[in-house]
Amino acid sequence: MGRAIATACTTSGHSTTVWNRTPGKETGLDVTVAETASEAITASPLVIVCVLNYPAAQSILDAEALKGRTLLNLTGGSPEQAREMATWAADHGIAYLDGVILNGIVGGPDAALLYSGSSEIYAAQQHTLAALGENGRYLGEDPGQAAGFNMSLLDLFWTSMFGVVHSFQLAAAENISPAAFNGPAKDMTTMLPDLIDLVTAHLTSHEFPGDASTIDSAASILDDVIETARAGGVDADLLRAGRAAVQRAIEAGHGAEGFSRLAVR
Amino acid sequence: MGRAIATACTTSGHSTTVWNRTPGKETGLDVTVAETASEAITASPLVIVCVLNYPAAQSILDAEALKGRTLLNLTGGSPEQAREMATWAADHGIAYLDGVILNGIVGGPDAALLYSGSSEIYAAQQHTLAALGENGRYLGEDPGQAAGFNMSLLDLFWTSMFGVVHSFQLAAAENISPAAFNGPAKDMTTMLPDLIDLVTAHLTSHEFPGDASTIDSAASILDDVIETARAGGVDADLLRAGRAAVQRAIEAGHGAEGFSRLAVR
Repeated sequence: MGRAIATACTTSGHSTTVWNRTPGKETGLDVTVAETASEAITASPLVIVCVLNYPAAQSILDAEALKGRTLLNLTGGSPEQAREMATWAADHGIAYLDGVILNGIVGGPDAALLYSGSSEIYAAQQHTLAALGENGRYLGEDPGQAAGFNMSLLDLFWTSMFGVVHSFQLAAAENISPAAFNGPAKDMTTMLPDLIDLVTAHLTSHEFPGDASTIDSAASILDDVIETARAGGVDADLLRAGRAAVQRAIEAGHGAEGFSRLAVR
Repeated sequence: MGRAIATACTTSGHSTTVWNRTPGKETGLDVTVAETASEAITASPLVIVCVLNYPAAQSILDAEALKGRTLLNLTGGSPEQAREMATWAADHGIAYLDGVILNGIVGGPDAALLYSGSSEIYAAQQHTLAALGENGRYLGEDPGQAAGFNMSLLDLFWTSMFGVVHSFQLAAAENISPAAFNGPAKDMTTMLPDLIDLVTAHLTSHEFPGDASTIDSAASILDDVIETARAGGVDADLLRAGRAAVQRAIEAGHGAEGFSRLAVR
């Protein structure tokens, strides 16, 4: 990620100084290499940090060096962590913006970056931030908003990935090779966008018609999938957790409604 | 589903007799309506059953009426249920084929049907079955094979749908409207086919390089998502079940490997 960010900065003609925990990652880039994180911070008016998580970021961010500069934090974390870092920055005279990289792409038209925090600071940096992606979106004053968006999308992404790895396990238990499962599995995922539209429409109208499929029928199918996993010796804890949420909806009287009813907070 | 199957049969010029638990579903179709399930069974040499689940199928299948005919069971269920029904059919002199409708489409080039069971019976019916979809695939003699394929795909589908509904809940907790979450959520799902290719390649080579992302980094992200759900008052049982599987992989020494390692049975 650091390399992609540095490349986007230099491509846009910005003089760029980098620091990485592991030296040598900058090979081939037109950048200045700092000996320490603090040296990298003091080299520029805009400082971008993107590491594994907030504790890792906090361990390298030097408040004294950052004072009077703008800090853009692209490290992934919870909204609460983003808000805490914004408060810490304000307490130390650091202009703070929180951002997230949604799809792993930095720079150009395909990058999808979200920003939140002070609108004044965002306005001042907007031109420079275009280096990271032309289609950046500012979400609002709450510094946790970009992180909240990111966490919701990562919830969808990682839960789906749990489904991907688990379904290959179940296929193996049923003597289906990865190559044979590949195509139908990919086809299956192409049904999701239409269903996301359906969930969006139902949540917006707050009506959850069960005309296409119901929570009751999902329960019946899930019972069969769980039994298949059990019989095949594949862990079904995650499916059981989902099935329990389905059961709660049925017991609350929603069995004849559409599955989208489960998206109600 | 019954209506789609009957339409595909009549469109292909087959004389078709239908029975449904709820009368009147056949309105507008060029079919004969039977008064009872047994009457519908005795009307044709090929009998197709597609109901909610195997117990529902068993309750309407009349062994005496079916004797000497071919039964195609398109009801969804576990491989074990399919095998049991095949045994029951053989015991009663009924030629049995098991099938699944993968994408809800029947008839034409977009239908994706899988069949398993006796190759002799499949060969005898192949021409007639083309009415249900031109691209039907026969998987082999084990009558449970089509159901096993279906269950593995439904595992992927429903786990992903759990991700969809849960992510909208989390978005709501973060003050993100369904309409604002819709586009980025759909974009996120378009990343899945490439990742399914990656998992397939890793499983096939049995090498799980962590060069793009590791199980350790997934654990860190999941901890943030779970904490965000907890703080937002959204149930995180399913994420915790997935996180536990990630932890087991880390404790088994796979933390620096790619997430695809979790697809190993």
